[in-house]
Amino acid sequence: MRAARFYAAKDIRIEEIDEPSEDLGPHQVLVEPRWTGICGTDLHEYLAGPIVTPATAHALTGATLPQVLGHEFSADVVAVGDAVDNVAAGDRVSVMPLAYCRECAFCVRGLNQLCTRMGCVGLSWPGGGFSARVVVDDYQAWRLPDALSYEQGAMIEPAAVAAYGVARGGVVPGDRVLVCGAGPIGALTVLAAWAAGAGAVYLSEPNAKRATWAGGALDTAGVFDPAATDVVGELREATAGLGVDVAIECSGSEPGLRAAIGAVRTRGTVAQVGLHVKDAAIDPMRLSEREITLVGTWAYDVHEWPRYMAQVASGAFPVEKVVTDKIGLDDVVTKGFDVLTDPSGDQIKILVNPN
Amino acid sequence: MRAARFYAAKDIRIEEIDEPSEDLGPHQVLVEPRWTGICGTDLHEYLAGPIVTPATAHALTGATLPQVLGHEFSADVVAVGDAVDNVAAGDRVSVMPLAYCRECAFCVRGLNQLCTRMGCVGLSWPGGGFSARVVVDDYQAWRLPDALSYEQGAMIEPAAVAAYGVARGGVVPGDRVLVCGAGPIGALTVLAAWAAGAGAVYLSEPNAKRATWAGGALDTAGVFDPAATDVVGELREATAGLGVDVAIECSGSEPGLRAAIGAVRTRGTVAQVGLHVKDAAIDPMRLSEREITLVGTWAYDVHEWPRYMAQVASGAFPVEKVVTDKIGLDDVVTKGFDVLTDPSGDQIKILVNPN
Repeated sequence: MRAARFYAAKDIRIEEIDEPSEDLGPHQVLVEPRWTGICGTDLHEYLAGPIVTPATAHALTGATLPQVLGHEFSADVVAVGDAVDNVAAGDRVSVMPLAYCRECAFCVRGLNQLCTRMGCVGLSWPGGGFSARVVVDDYQAWRLPDALSYEQGAMIEPAAVAAYGVARGGVVPGDRVLVCGAGPIGALTVLAAWAAGAGAVYLSEPNAKRATWAGGALDTAGVFDPAATDVVGELREATAGLGVDVAIECSGSEPGLRAAIGAVRTRGTVAQVGLHVKDAAIDPMRLSEREITLVGTWAYDVHEWPRYMAQVASGAFPVEKVVTDKIGLDDVVTKGFDVLTDPSGDQIKILVNPN
Repeated sequence: MRAARFYAAKDIRIEEIDEPSEDLGPHQVLVEPRWTGICGTDLHEYLAGPIVTPATAHALTGATLPQVLGHEFSADVVAVGDAVDNVAAGDRVSVMPLAYCRECAFCVRGLNQLCTRMGCVGLSWPGGGFSARVVVDDYQAWRLPDALSYEQGAMIEPAAVAAYGVARGGVVPGDRVLVCGAGPIGALTVLAAWAAGAGAVYLSEPNAKRATWAGGALDTAGVFDPAATDVVGELREATAGLGVDVAIECSGSEPGLRAAIGAVRTRGTVAQVGLHVKDAAIDPMRLSEREITLVGTWAYDVHEWPRYMAQVASGAFPVEKVVTDKIGLDDVVTKGFDVLTDPSGDQIKILVNPN
């Protein structure tokens, strides 16, 4: 079968590999991916990896490079192991890609996203969504509600990150929310904040093309270019001097984090969703004197996958708006990774048909 | 009467000033301070002020320089205004020095410490605890339980900062807690964490004299010199690899904040109590991947003054351990401010007799 495998930075190869065996373990599920999204984590690997892809055998999954990428995907179930009772052959599914040990201090408390030996299908797993077939575990396969398309099913994973960030930020109906960064997670976070009942959702994004797109597609209350505008000042003005209730930092950048901390009101919350690759200077005095809370957020609550799907199925969380292109597997580098890593590009989320 | 007044950095004068009038407004209370503590905020003013002391008329209180210092004090009530019903002449009191408007968005929610026009007796008020007499408002005067000495009564204010930091950090019985910094607030925070039922309280402090004193006086589970020891590594070892449950940053320094963030466990909390005077570089990725919460904390909940006093009265929170010297008003600069601003000094909390 065809697969997109990561070997090293700037080295993703579309090549022929063996199909996974149909001789499944009792809790295994063989699926055929339908649509698979390219994620920011994939882009980090492409630019500077291996980072999370395993150069040596992964502690939980045993996976090693080369790694079939793709961890945001919908699929059809082809076959299931003897002990699988949550899905059956022929089912449409959305794959929750996290792999966890179910034994560590965090797994036993249900905080599986914080597993000390965390793995992930398509990043540190024997297979991924950028191939015709892949074997996952039963707890990772969730039956897709009829109302959801395969495209929407592929978007549940990044949508879950956004919805979880909104939940960790404590957004309640009517809140004024600032989202920093209009990458795919930032864009989905704008939608997730609206879906949580936000009174107004503002966006800070320096890339003019993304800002223009987001201003139109995401129904924001205001989009600010942080390089040209005093975002904090603008938001104070828009909120009668108070500041926003919650800021969700999705840029992974120091300016984004500083804007988030500057823009929230007294006793407001900043949720750190974007992944920073270096230290960032903040003003701790502002945290103190305004009693601001800065809360880290990682992935999502794996047990809330049905809630994330239900939010999308209800129509309140139109994740499909963030899909800006759909391509074939053979084009995954040239029309996918290369386009998305262009800092002046206008693409947000590209879905790949792995067949 | 004699008073210690702040004019400018390095310029505190012990001088004769007029006594406050006994012609009190309906909600005013005239008191005679018994013991008054020198606070870190006073030291900041002395070294680099005016910072919070008002160079021009304060928005709420109208106070201006020169400012009688002293905001941590016990007192005897001399006389009360017509509408005062919570204290009477002859009562022993502990003064809650914060002054707030009772009208702003935060005051009306009971978050008076976050008042947009906050003032403070002894910092931005017509008078302070370093004088023979001062007029306060009725809501600032709290009757001292019989079990508390005047010395303990003078310690309620910094003890409140420590107890509130422990509360904002969410310390629950059995928690392993790291306190960064053994200044007066750090030392009281060690005691407050024990009083909240902590299972172990560790301390990080670079000043060898303070560290030695704290190791003996505060019953810490371990005192680490951050310059000589890998505090984060030591605490991981002491907690079976997990890290501490809560870290309370009382140093106002970048190394303190970094150690706090590094030392807490996954899903742990860092409470920022120390006042930073410049930016600090943190690693936001650690906040994300370990879902750490960083919570700002400012002063205390003014309505919990009785609780703070009751904690001390019960014996569980022996604040008097932190008092390392007691001096007279005429010595407040030479035996007080100059001693406490010596970075290699061994004094923690010095009480002043203003009479």
